Amino acid sequence: MTDAITRYDLPQTAIPRRWYNIQADLPRPLPPVLHPATHAPIGPDDLAPLFPGALIQQEVSTERYIDIPDEVREIYKLWRPTPLIRARRLEKALDTPAHIYYKYEGVSPSGSHKLNTAVAQAYYNKAAGVQGLTTETGAGQWGTALSIACNFVGLPLEVFMVKVSFQQKPYRRVIMQSFGSSVQASPSDTTDAGRAVLAQDPDTTGSLGIAISEAVEVAAKSGGTKKYALGSVLNHVLTHQTVIGQEALAQMELAGEFPDVVVACAGGGSNLGGIALPFIHLNLTAGKNTRILATEPAACPSLTRGVYAYDFGDAIGMTPLIKMHTLGRRFIPPPVHAGGLRYHGMASIISELYDQRMMEATAIGQVETFKAAMTFLRAEGIVPAPEPSHAIAGVIREALAAKESGEKKVILFHLCGHGHFDMSAYDAFVSGQLHDYEYPQELIDAAMADLPQVEDPTQAS
Amino acid sequence: MTDAITRYDLPQTAIPRRWYNIQADLPRPLPPVLHPATHAPIGPDDLAPLFPGALIQQEVSTERYIDIPDEVREIYKLWRPTPLIRARRLEKALDTPAHIYYKYEGVSPSGSHKLNTAVAQAYYNKAAGVQGLTTETGAGQWGTALSIACNFVGLPLEVFMVKVSFQQKPYRRVIMQSFGSSVQASPSDTTDAGRAVLAQDPDTTGSLGIAISEAVEVAAKSGGTKKYALGSVLNHVLTHQTVIGQEALAQMELAGEFPDVVVACAGGGSNLGGIALPFIHLNLTAGKNTRILATEPAACPSLTRGVYAYDFGDAIGMTPLIKMHTLGRRFIPPPVHAGGLRYHGMASIISELYDQRMMEATAIGQVETFKAAMTFLRAEGIVPAPEPSHAIAGVIREALAAKESGEKKVILFHLCGHGHFDMSAYDAFVSGQLHDYEYPQELIDAAMADLPQVEDPTQAS
Repeated sequence: MTDAITRYDLPQTAIPRRWYNIQADLPRPLPPVLHPATHAPIGPDDLAPLFPGALIQQEVSTERYIDIPDEVREIYKLWRPTPLIRARRLEKALDTPAHIYYKYEGVSPSGSHKLNTAVAQAYYNKAAGVQGLTTETGAGQWGTALSIACNFVGLPLEVFMVKVSFQQKPYRRVIMQSFGSSVQASPSDTTDAGRAVLAQDPDTTGSLGIAISEAVEVAAKSGGTKKYALGSVLNHVLTHQTVIGQEALAQMELAGEFPDVVVACAGGGSNLGGIALPFIHLNLTAGKNTRILATEPAACPSLTRGVYAYDFGDAIGMTPLIKMHTLGRRFIPPPVHAGGLRYHGMASIISELYDQRMMEATAIGQVETFKAAMTFLRAEGIVPAPEPSHAIAGVIREALAAKESGEKKVILFHLCGHGHFDMSAYDAFVSGQLHDYEYPQELIDAAMADLPQVEDPTQAS
Repeated sequence: MTDAITRYDLPQTAIPRRWYNIQADLPRPLPPVLHPATHAPIGPDDLAPLFPGALIQQEVSTERYIDIPDEVREIYKLWRPTPLIRARRLEKALDTPAHIYYKYEGVSPSGSHKLNTAVAQAYYNKAAGVQGLTTETGAGQWGTALSIACNFVGLPLEVFMVKVSFQQKPYRRVIMQSFGSSVQASPSDTTDAGRAVLAQDPDTTGSLGIAISEAVEVAAKSGGTKKYALGSVLNHVLTHQTVIGQEALAQMELAGEFPDVVVACAGGGSNLGGIALPFIHLNLTAGKNTRILATEPAACPSLTRGVYAYDFGDAIGMTPLIKMHTLGRRFIPPPVHAGGLRYHGMASIISELYDQRMMEATAIGQVETFKAAMTFLRAEGIVPAPEPSHAIAGVIREALAAKESGEKKVILFHLCGHGHFDMSAYDAFVSGQLHDYEYPQELIDAAMADLPQVEDPTQAS
């Protein structure tokens, strides 16, 4: 009647004591971050207005391991280690010879993996004497996580929430407020960046890029009292998330298997990096050959249709220039697109790995994505967030290919969060209101023409 | 900066293998369930149209332990054992010498403890060849849990959802539908019971009692193909929930402490029974003296202001008569009341324990309840559902009394679910729109006058 549910649990003592920093193992160093005006490589001093010293150090560190502070590890104990589960009922539903495992981060108090780096960033800022943080949030996962983390360490937080989410997800706003954060719809009229956008288009639904501009502006103009926190993209964020992949490695060992392919969705890259980097480490240093598959929305295809070039991290052009896969900083995903994964760029680490063919990527439409979500929840009993549902869709493709070829493939994927706050998207899907959307090529072409004309100094030299 | 977070985890092998049935240990047997027309004690045959044989047997069993079927225990592995956590940051926030522990059932896929009995009931019905289940749901916790359980075992489910929740909680409806259930607002025009209520009051917001009438009617008229499932109140439901208290006992042993008082909210009684019955077992058989404190909403005070008398389980008067603490079957909680805990009666087991002074009870208003919820979430990082927030309010009272008296008290409470689907109630609270409500005495008096005039045969003899 039912199939055995196999969950591979680790004791609390197995919570990793170190984050893994892939910069130690990359075949070539990451392209330098450049000053937005001079285009010269920037140093730690340039980042000091936005981040505390410890995080700037981690951003550029080439040490393979970074010790996790005891205080951070203590908070991790509230929900870590997270479960690794074999999706036997999904395997059966797909009638596949593949073995499917998922690492489930939805058990965190914020409901997603974002809390892993939120706690670390809040800790380092508090320890550095910072008096408040600013940040942006799209679907609300990051804002929720940072609100919980800042509340834990006693640090005020101002959140700029992309307007379309602010309007469609009032409960996300309420959670952040309940944890003591102040939340504004972005673009707002409280920043120069916000006012500039509103002057051009008063009816804009906002974008992550714009919200980043506003949050950065508030920190930069605070005279050093406030700093800024980003929930993805940056090296130190991906490094913090490696607790996920490290635990998964230990749990796969408990299961007595090793993945042939690791699948995760890609928005800014931290969810993908979190599970994949420890496996790539073994590919680079221990002769393993695990495939890494990034799945991204067809409506926001920064890996598969963007270019690897220097671009701004925000919409206005205030941040340093980062070499990354990008759709152009003015990219705004179509309103039809449900859930997160709406950033114009991609983490430098992920972009470099993809460029060096150490990782694959595929874009998936949202109808296939929500169909996959329904297949998963009916089989496994857990409602996945829209973001990791892109990974599930990728897993189902892989599993059906294995069925076709008769291959006994081992698939591991990252279920980075539950969908409890995304039921409006499910409602839209169930009632037939979600449609696919291919981002128009002419918009991409226009964005490419608009990229800052900057050479990669490491490539030029 | 932060205080140590202590979580007491058990391995999967520690998932209980037996449910504890307190009917084996009660000083006197529970009052018999009576036929609604003849008022004679009913036998298993009378219940057969509604429940499968195995559950009817559990309902009246006086065996101390009932083996948990392997198939049920397999599904429990998806989320059990659940965590027991010491709320050190809450202790510090309250500046209390008390030690506060909570057993957290919100990690289940349905987000509450309800899944423990839902899986068991779905299993026994499926095993008996039943072709479909009917049920009611108020705030949606039970309907969600039974939807997930029925989907797991492959059993169609029809849910009658109290109209006010159907309208205010569309996402709960979507979850149930996503798991394949059909969901109707109650009162509906598809049953005699629903039509009768609508004829009297077309604008009624519905009640659990009415929804039960509708669900029971559909099962009773199905000619044996459909059965009915109830999420609380019945003996077998409370028995299934004892996995919670059994695990908590083992976890308190890990913590090296034993509770002086166990606190849980009381609606139908299954959440309270689930954690408390294994402790009452030790009170009755092992010389322990743990206080049990039930917290109920001031807006639905069936223990503290109801009477212990025979009453119908539903609003129309279709079900057998059960002796229980009741506010009268026509009780409808005020619309201002947030969350669940809106049933007119109380589990027979809990009512008997309360009548025999083996348990205390207190009623708490919703403003104090939501204040307590905010204190807890700011301290512990988890958003509690409104129902267990009544328990938290009780815990805070106990902890502050301990501070007053300087007593080092050990408090254990049941955090039966998260509040992810209840953020509208938090929104109302944060924006100052939640008010206290005392249920008017004249309404209670009227309901008491309306109770069926039935003697308890065990008391009369």
